Amino acid sequence: MLDNALMKSVLQRYIDGFNADDAEAIVDLFADDATVEDPVGSDPIKGKAAIEQFYRRAVTMNVRLALAAPIRGSHSNAAAMAFDITFSMDGKEVFTRAIDVMEFNNEGKIIRMRAYWGPDDTKVKEG
Amino acid sequence: MLDNALMKSVLQRYIDGFNADDAEAIVDLFADDATVEDPVGSDPIKGKAAIEQFYRRAVTMNVRLALAAPIRGSHSNAAAMAFDITFSMDGKEVFTRAIDVMEFNNEGKIIRMRAYWGPDDTKVKEG
Repeated sequence: MLDNALMKSVLQRYIDGFNADDAEAIVDLFADDATVEDPVGSDPIKGKAAIEQFYRRAVTMNVRLALAAPIRGSHSNAAAMAFDITFSMDGKEVFTRAIDVMEFNNEGKIIRMRAYWGPDDTKVKEG
Repeated sequence: MLDNALMKSVLQRYIDGFNADDAEAIVDLFADDATVEDPVGSDPIKGKAAIEQFYRRAVTMNVRLALAAPIRGSHSNAAAMAFDITFSMDGKEVFTRAIDVMEFNNEGKIIRMRAYWGPDDTKVKEG
């Protein structure tokens, strides 16, 4: 079991990275062979290069994350968090509720990210 | 992808079952070949009989669940929720923060439950 405080600090840095528009800080949290499945049910993004492309694009959308509840750890190399997301797309503001589950390698890098949000967890604000 | 409203209703019934001390209602949500890993990192409980034993014992502990944020769905047969738990053990009240991820079969029964909570997500209230 990885240290829970360490895993939680990585999830917090994931949030802080978005809120600072700092793609590099986010990408640095991932292992080279990591996968990102966002949302769960989509084809996972595989490998650091594809992950970097994903997050570099994301931070151009003025993404802001806010925890909906304290981050949870586990008795394994995994942690999870419920949070709310706002971002801009095509001039409109989008609001999404998600739970991310992160699995870690023994070096404390994320090897697997899965984002749980469904069609009715996201809505476009008109105007 | 299973209907998200259906999956969320099952998670809500999981919560309601605990709050009504109704083990039967909880167990009925699971498929015969389901597994329960609570917490993540422990040996999973396998099969309906073992799951029934687990929840019948749980409801004797005056477990109360409260959502910490709205339930999330996915674009697959999975949903997740962040919630807070209180229960009684050896005359003391225990408080735990968890995120449960549930996977479903095509009949809408839970086939896999994983509960994310770590050593520092649970505390015993003294007194």
